[in-house]
Amino acid sequence: MTVASGIVTLLTDFGQREPFVGVMKGVMLGRHPGLTFVDLMHDVPAHDIAFASFWLGNAAPWFPPGTVHLCVVDPGVGTNRRALVAECGEQWFVAPDNGVLSAALAEGGARVYNATVPEGASRTFHGRDVFAPLAADLAGESKRPGDVGPIFEDWARISHPVAARNGERIRGVVMVVDHFGNLISNIRLASGARGRVRVGAAGLPTLDLTFCQSYSEAGLGAALVNAWGLLEIAVARGRAGDVLGFGVGAWIEIEFD
Amino acid sequence: MTVASGIVTLLTDFGQREPFVGVMKGVMLGRHPGLTFVDLMHDVPAHDIAFASFWLGNAAPWFPPGTVHLCVVDPGVGTNRRALVAECGEQWFVAPDNGVLSAALAEGGARVYNATVPEGASRTFHGRDVFAPLAADLAGESKRPGDVGPIFEDWARISHPVAARNGERIRGVVMVVDHFGNLISNIRLASGARGRVRVGAAGLPTLDLTFCQSYSEAGLGAALVNAWGLLEIAVARGRAGDVLGFGVGAWIEIEFD
Amino acid sequence: MTVASGIVTLLTDFGQREPFVGVMKGVMLGRHPGLTFVDLMHDVPAHDIAFASFWLGNAAPWFPPGTVHLCVVDPGVGTNRRALVAECGEQWFVAPDNGVLSAALAEGGARVYNATVPEGASRTFHGRDVFAPLAADLAGESKRPGDVGPIFEDWARISHPVAARNGERIRGVVMVVDHFGNLISNIRLASGARGRVRVGAAGLPTLDLTFCQSYSEAGLGAALVNAWGLLEIAVARGRAGDVLGFGVGAWIEIEFD
Repeated sequence: MTVASGIVTLLTDFGQREPFVGVMKGVMLGRHPGLTFVDLMHDVPAHDIAFASFWLGNAAPWFPPGTVHLCVVDPGVGTNRRALVAECGEQWFVAPDNGVLSAALAEGGARVYNATVPEGASRTFHGRDVFAPLAADLAGESKRPGDVGPIFEDWARISHPVAARNGERIRGVVMVVDHFGNLISNIRLASGARGRVRVGAAGLPTLDLTFCQSYSEAGLGAALVNAWGLLEIAVARGRAGDVLGFGVGAWIEIEFD
Repeated sequence: MTVASGIVTLLTDFGQREPFVGVMKGVMLGRHPGLTFVDLMHDVPAHDIAFASFWLGNAAPWFPPGTVHLCVVDPGVGTNRRALVAECGEQWFVAPDNGVLSAALAEGGARVYNATVPEGASRTFHGRDVFAPLAADLAGESKRPGDVGPIFEDWARISHPVAARNGERIRGVVMVVDHFGNLISNIRLASGARGRVRVGAAGLPTLDLTFCQSYSEAGLGAALVNAWGLLEIAVARGRAGDVLGFGVGAWIEIEFD
Repeated sequence: MTVASGIVTLLTDFGQREPFVGVMKGVMLGRHPGLTFVDLMHDVPAHDIAFASFWLGNAAPWFPPGTVHLCVVDPGVGTNRRALVAECGEQWFVAPDNGVLSAALAEGGARVYNATVPEGASRTFHGRDVFAPLAADLAGESKRPGDVGPIFEDWARISHPVAARNGERIRGVVMVVDHFGNLISNIRLASGARGRVRVGAAGLPTLDLTFCQSYSEAGLGAALVNAWGLLEIAVARGRAGDVLGFGVGAWIEIEFD
């Protein structure tokens, strides 16, 4: 049985100009003073469930077992969308039921619970009134995931685009352009991968690239397998997105040697 | 008697491009290693005391009793403006005496102390040299609020605009436009409020709105009572400020049914 | 012998739009649950080693002895650049060997170790796979600096511009423009300094300024000795960089009275 680590990560689209995230932490500390908080990200584009899901799925496995991931990207706050608590592997999640856990729970084997919304919760800030209390109680071991409400199966999924393999070819798409301008795809590869890479998008000439091993070797554009096991297009000391002109949704095709 | 929670919140206009906030935490940890920090916000527009006061007043009550709120928006640093420590309700505050605690202390009953500025403090960074040590000593229980200096009454207040009630009407103004573009007013309402809402500003046509209960129901513009108990104008999945063209200072009038 | 404080500061150019910093914290908490994290800054311009070095050098001395400063500005990640652990004064540092510790170690007396890169580390995220584990092990006292690898001398330095003294004159340059628009120079002065100050840059008329003691007295432009002991040009309640037209690299000359 997974034991709570006492750690709560926070992932929201609240930005950092108002004290919304801080107030959630205040509420949690009021319930359990000894919690440890780790901010994952708060500058998710407003209401961008897919972006939040993508990164939460990549980040969660790096935390100790029994960590609670509190994820509040919640355009449906105050409607009858459910509040959920999930366990998957040894990680726990607290989030609105809108698909934001799709990537984190994609491996299968998740147990998802329909959490009761407390009386008197506001209709505009469930992060503070619903999700923070749930996260604190799980992380502080005053509740187990199964205590919050009935298990259920039909929780919301969004369909992240999936890379398709066809013999010696894989075709995928750019999922995000990161802070450094690198183009991160949905193509999962082992780190020794070799082959020819083509990148394209409507209205742009197709680009032929080779693999390299590190950003420094990427020159004016190359593919590499990044630290998340995903194919990424980079430019040495430059912003690949800007230099090459591609962005989210561009297709990438690999033909293995 | 309120006991220190060991929590220090931080609210500044220091931004996050330099290590100013981190250095304040380093100074505090040097005095009391076990403190818990919660960042409230650091992207307050430079020197914007009113914005800081508004949000501090809304955020502070959500923290456990004996929390120290360290607020450094301090255009008068290094002059003879006082440094103050305040207790109000069960929350403690450390700030320059420039009005930034106006909203937090508005309820009345505050006790405010004129804290001694230590010898050798710099003239440009009292956050590090004056306020952080005070906050650490309060949070770490090596000082009580009354230990820092004499109590006094004429601490600085700024006058936040106050909504005016006239029979079945209330008239207020937009105080801030938040990260999601929502227009947050100074009109405090119970959550079941109903009535007609008008919004206006010089040079713009007046807009008639109705109340809704959640952001999803706001359509192309509606009023709701937000999680701080304030009337707010929102647009479903959009930025009300941009869509409707109103900003800080626009007037809002409610006529109850 | 310095004892670990259990504090890890983090300074990166990762920005805050992805969970890169959070994942480093997750890895560290997996090795040592009780660590305390302080974010120094994460919005270092991408790959700007000089900017990171400047602020790390100013910030580190304000932390308790035995603090680990984890600094990941690492354009050479995945190449054969070394990973290093350093002790200087009573502060510890973990960073790539690219000069980013130049200012922090400038005082002399540093002991620098060439840390072994673990098998299986990714080639694109040594912050997570190399530096975070090192920092956690030092802060959690499962390793001492000398345990990570052999001591060595020829670690990378960058040459920050140094102010030059010539009789009663000092000439330096603007190193950074801070969040408030203040122009921070490399001229180190005692806080009572007096004299005439001139600022200039190619293509701009030279400006004559006097000293003041606090930002409020800076009027339309004055010099003061800031909280880091550096000469700084400020404008009262304004952005000196914008108002005066000078930026990084502008020269500043003081002639003492």
